[in-house]
Parts: sequence; structure tokens; C-alpha cells
Amino acid sequence: MKTDPSCIFCKIVKGEIPCSKVYENHKYIAFLDISPANPGHTLVIPKEHYEDLLNTPDHILDGMLNDAKKIATAVLKAVNADSFNLQANTGRNSGQIVPHLHLHIIPRFSNDGHHLFKQGSYKEGEMQKVAEKIRKNLT
Amino acid sequence: MKTDPSCIFCKIVKGEIPCSKVYENHKYIAFLDISPANPGHTLVIPKEHYEDLLNTPDHILDGMLNDAKKIATAVLKAVNADSFNLQANTGRNSGQIVPHLHLHIIPRFSNDGHHLFKQGSYKEGEMQKVAEKIRKNLT
Repeated sequence: MKTDPSCIFCKIVKGEIPCSKVYENHKYIAFLDISPANPGHTLVIPKEHYEDLLNTPDHILDGMLNDAKKIATAVLKAVNADSFNLQANTGRNSGQIVPHLHLHIIPRFSNDGHHLFKQGSYKEGEMQKVAEKIRKNLT
Repeated sequence: MKTDPSCIFCKIVKGEIPCSKVYENHKYIAFLDISPANPGHTLVIPKEHYEDLLNTPDHILDGMLNDAKKIATAVLKAVNADSFNLQANTGRNSGQIVPHLHLHIIPRFSNDGHHLFKQGSYKEGEMQKVAEKIRKNLT
């Protein structure tokens, strides 16, 4: 199993650092974020060490969203919420702090003070150019 | 195929409303968000209509994160970014606007003005209680 001895999440997987674990199967564990955006804020991580979504192999990602769904359902019941944000931050400008892939499950409440990113607009013709560049990089 | 005639994303899937499509396979399409948080902001959606992550069946979710990884890699190259946030908003208090499951891929740049949710802390003993409730709801 791919592991990084200096990674705090790998230490949690190995039980070297305690956590409030809520779920474990052969591929993933989930535990509470110790600095929650809201109560019940949970992290789902693969047991193997991969820095972020971009360098995690498909066989590790397979089933991760399904498990996140199952865990989120339990989180919402536990904290009596009907909403949540699922988030994975990737790269130095994304706010990612621990370089070990993790999906945030953040329960949301009415007027909890959190706001999504402000959305803007494209200039005339810009959207088409961006889409064309993405398509070229996908082929 | 499960579809909702009143859903704007179902209309995009059927080609009844135009979009800047960047990717399509048998299960998903991806297109640019017309109100981007940053240039290249892309949405990945299943072709079938499911309101959000919680009520999407596992066979639809299988492979979605893998495709999002592939699409995000191309998005980052296209807009010359090294970072992004993956986000799925679920429920009325989450900021979800269109009730058809979609994963946001939001490229991030240094000093782009966006900020993640502020994180706080638990009171003494609260984290253990929350974790215990989640575990009970997972069994």
C-alpha cells in the first residue's frame, strides 16, 4: 500500500494519530475534521497516499463518490441538516492544506454564514475560446 | 433514460438548449458554466436526471470522479492553472441552484479573490458525540 511516513493522514490511517473515525472499508476511511466549517464536517480519504485528485489512479477513485454519498447521508441525519457541500481542493492555490486526497463533506444550515464563490461572466467570444482549448486538451 | 422535461440541464443533454460542451461519453457530459467563478469553470453532469448526490444511484456515480479528474486535467491546461476546487452542492441550504446533479470544476489562481469556508472548532466533548451519532446512522 502506497504510504508517506511524513503525511498526517497516513498516520491517521495507520492509527499512529487518533481521529474521530466514522467509517472504514478496505479502500477508504472517514473521520471528523478537527476544525469544522460546521458540526459534522467529515473527511473521506483513501487509505493509500495520493497527493490529490489529479494523481490518484482510477481504481482508487472507483466507488469513492458512492461511499461519500452513503457517509453524507449519515452525517446529515446526525447533525439534523438537509444540505451539504462536497468539496475536494487540489493544488496550492485551492486551499488544500494536507497533500493527501480528501473529500470534504460539509453540512450546511440556513444562515450559517458560509457563501459559495461569487460567479461572474465571460466577455463576448471568450467562452467559446476556452471551451475549444479544453476540448483540444481532452483529445 | 430518466429525464425531467422542465430541467434546464436535461434540455442541455437533449440539445434543446445550447451549451459550450467540452466532453461527452455514454453517461456524462461536461460544459462550461455560463457564470464562471473563474474562466474554465466547468460542470460535469450525468445524462440521466437525478436531483443531487444523495438520490443518484451508484451505477451512475461509478466512474464520475474518474471522468472529473480527466476533464479537470484538461481544464487546468486550457486556462494555465495548477489548482482547482471540485464541488457538488446538495440541498436548499448548500447554494445548489439547478436540481440536477453536477460537479463543479473551478480553476483557481493566486489572489483570485475566492476563499474557502472559515473553519472553527468543537467544544470539549462535542466532536465525540457527533462522531458517535454519525456511526450509529451508518450501521
